[in-house]
Amino acid sequence: MNIVIIGGVAAGAKAAAKVKRLLPDAAVKIYTKDSNVSYSSCGIPYYIQGNFTDYRTLLVRSVEEFNKSGIEVHLNSNVVKILPEQKDILVSQPGKAELVAYDKLIIATGARPYIPDIKGLNSFSNIYTVRTIEDAIAIRNIMLESKTAVILGGGYIGIELLESFSRNGVFTHLVDHNPAVMSVLDNEMSNAVMNRLNKIDNKNFMFHFNSEIKEFVGDNKTANEVILNDDTKIKCDFIVICAGVKPNSELAKDAGIEIGETGAIKVNKLMRTSIENIYACGDCAEKTHIVSGQKVWIPLGSTANKEGRCAAMNAAGVYCEFEGVLGSMVTRCLNTTIAMTGLTEKQAQKIGFKPVSVVVNKYDKVAYMPETGEITLKVVADKITGLLLGAQAVGSIGADKRVNTVTSGLIGHLTVEQFSRNDLTYSPAYSPTIDPLLNAMQILCNKISRSC
Amino acid sequence: MNIVIIGGVAAGAKAAAKVKRLLPDAAVKIYTKDSNVSYSSCGIPYYIQGNFTDYRTLLVRSVEEFNKSGIEVHLNSNVVKILPEQKDILVSQPGKAELVAYDKLIIATGARPYIPDIKGLNSFSNIYTVRTIEDAIAIRNIMLESKTAVILGGGYIGIELLESFSRNGVFTHLVDHNPAVMSVLDNEMSNAVMNRLNKIDNKNFMFHFNSEIKEFVGDNKTANEVILNDDTKIKCDFIVICAGVKPNSELAKDAGIEIGETGAIKVNKLMRTSIENIYACGDCAEKTHIVSGQKVWIPLGSTANKEGRCAAMNAAGVYCEFEGVLGSMVTRCLNTTIAMTGLTEKQAQKIGFKPVSVVVNKYDKVAYMPETGEITLKVVADKITGLLLGAQAVGSIGADKRVNTVTSGLIGHLTVEQFSRNDLTYSPAYSPTIDPLLNAMQILCNKISRSC
Repeated sequence: MNIVIIGGVAAGAKAAAKVKRLLPDAAVKIYTKDSNVSYSSCGIPYYIQGNFTDYRTLLVRSVEEFNKSGIEVHLNSNVVKILPEQKDILVSQPGKAELVAYDKLIIATGARPYIPDIKGLNSFSNIYTVRTIEDAIAIRNIMLESKTAVILGGGYIGIELLESFSRNGVFTHLVDHNPAVMSVLDNEMSNAVMNRLNKIDNKNFMFHFNSEIKEFVGDNKTANEVILNDDTKIKCDFIVICAGVKPNSELAKDAGIEIGETGAIKVNKLMRTSIENIYACGDCAEKTHIVSGQKVWIPLGSTANKEGRCAAMNAAGVYCEFEGVLGSMVTRCLNTTIAMTGLTEKQAQKIGFKPVSVVVNKYDKVAYMPETGEITLKVVADKITGLLLGAQAVGSIGADKRVNTVTSGLIGHLTVEQFSRNDLTYSPAYSPTIDPLLNAMQILCNKISRSC
Repeated sequence: MNIVIIGGVAAGAKAAAKVKRLLPDAAVKIYTKDSNVSYSSCGIPYYIQGNFTDYRTLLVRSVEEFNKSGIEVHLNSNVVKILPEQKDILVSQPGKAELVAYDKLIIATGARPYIPDIKGLNSFSNIYTVRTIEDAIAIRNIMLESKTAVILGGGYIGIELLESFSRNGVFTHLVDHNPAVMSVLDNEMSNAVMNRLNKIDNKNFMFHFNSEIKEFVGDNKTANEVILNDDTKIKCDFIVICAGVKPNSELAKDAGIEIGETGAIKVNKLMRTSIENIYACGDCAEKTHIVSGQKVWIPLGSTANKEGRCAAMNAAGVYCEFEGVLGSMVTRCLNTTIAMTGLTEKQAQKIGFKPVSVVVNKYDKVAYMPETGEITLKVVADKITGLLLGAQAVGSIGADKRVNTVTSGLIGHLTVEQFSRNDLTYSPAYSPTIDPLLNAMQILCNKISRSC
């Protein structure tokens, strides 16, 4: 039994380990064009920040550990073709190419940064994207010898790097074509993030919203200026592009595997693709949203792990269903926690729900406790059915706590009225007597009916 | 319309405010034997600790504020009899007694400390219980001039005071007849609390487990020694008894109102007692456990607030159901967070479930993050139905987070398999890739069936 896995960061590494445990006698082989395997992508901003200084800390499982458990790892190996009819893959390695046979194939090719077409982009060596360990090392090194940085994109990677750079004394310009950071959130909530960031004293950063980078300027392979579309010129020592990601689904598409509307590889609950014996998981695969039932592409490390496990189980002949995602996420920027789960109001609207929502601003503990911080919380429900659709939280460390409380409600398809019966833990050191979450739900309940 | 409320701490104060908002023209009167109204009992340990030094910070709403909104507050007023047939209460105040008529009566008489019968108990003035603002002030004052304290009882009030005293430099002896603190938890979990507390360097406290106080010894109204049942003698400057609480249900019982098996006042979902026009809420009232469906008495501030609101609504003619409690609670002792929701394994066993459980010890964030702490988590389910029954967590600040995630699962009556589909937020700064909670649930799932 040959089990071949393409890609080895999160989903691929997890799948390899799981399938080997289930089928100790199978030959399990990972092929990755990366020069590292099994690492924590989500930890890269914290390595850059200096929370730890050895990049190897990011490695979850080394090549040696994989080998020890009987898993072959082929680094710097680019899979250029999948040949489903003969059940082979064609691998191109430095100086050679070879066909590798599979009985079960697991595609975990991940995603890659989206890079907008900007003048000068390819002329300079100090313009970075963030995906691999090499990226991480290069960005940390240049950050340590720089005074000014430009980040393109205020999504979660952009704002995590903003924290890392500014805490390391590097003045950071963040450019985004949206009017605020974290534009995945509803407007009130990305505004709540902005309010907190703007209140910081002696800010070591500056925002350029509703802006795009028109051109990179520099000399000798080093960009030292970016020009925005309104002709603002920003001097800088390096640039990082965090303008979003795209699924690496081309290899699958080329093999005739069905691609979903989202651009990612279509899979069923068993992580099977449209071609027999081929599975896909992680950032390259499409997901089902548990609340809307729709196909979505939300690439996240926690999901990749679960999908890798599930794909491995089914490849090994052990039945496993992956139900889907809630799009739950958390990130941090300079003591502000930002978290969401389920649908935002704008997503709910777009899908065809009739959303109603409530935003509350509250203390996160009883006001007299010294550790008390503030939290802005938005809860969204469907006015017709009363079904809870999602929650977003922005505030002091711990705001994610309320969002995780909502995830279980979404899994259970609770109405707001049912959720309002919740009995949350209370102590002055942990929350107000009536938690902001319950408070918001009670108000939301009144917007739906008069019975709660 | 006369609405009379007996008791004014949490449930009573909330009920008064709510009923006045719903019926602005009604006469709303609070009678309490306390000399304060509307205060945060749960904040008392933090006042004693010195997190704030003005006791008035504990007051949620002052008598003046009540008066301003048209609510009469009668302090130091002991209600000695309820006369349901004539719809009066008999109030005894310093120097007088009067009959007060009601159309709707809300009983919120709360609970009182249970005081075991110990030799010498009534001979000394430096033996305290913790319930009122006066208790709080007296304990803080004596703590500030003391070197050694004895606490009887290692429940949550006992351990919160242990934190307060020891942080104020007072060496604290805690005596409990159980083998560990927080004996409401399952044994592994109270042991996990003990492991963390025992690891503290330069401990300013000492435990005396499986012990009872046999006698208080002292002179001139001041106890200066307690003698344990094994004849251990402990010198001390003052003593606090936190040996549990009892519902103040005697007044209701005397009026012919039905009392539940738990000893608290029987109420239905509308917070109605067995006698028409009389409601009960808060610590004096019996509750329904949402997981077991059984009647329980779990007196907590958060519940009192919700019940007060619900009793007020029904008294005002606005339909409101209070479904019950999960027994969710959180407390803190010296950087250890202790939280639970639903049924413990021993409770589940007693009730007739066939419980299975899993305990995990994990980091609460990715190990490489500087803020990472440890968490011990126990999840309990019913082996027959797969139904999730409860969770307990002990660990660094934030352990309560996982417990609140479970509360919503219990409200939705999820099975462990359903809960395992949860999509929790992930970032290295907030949790490991697979949260300890999901990890525990996956293992638990395997103990129930092979399908998850």
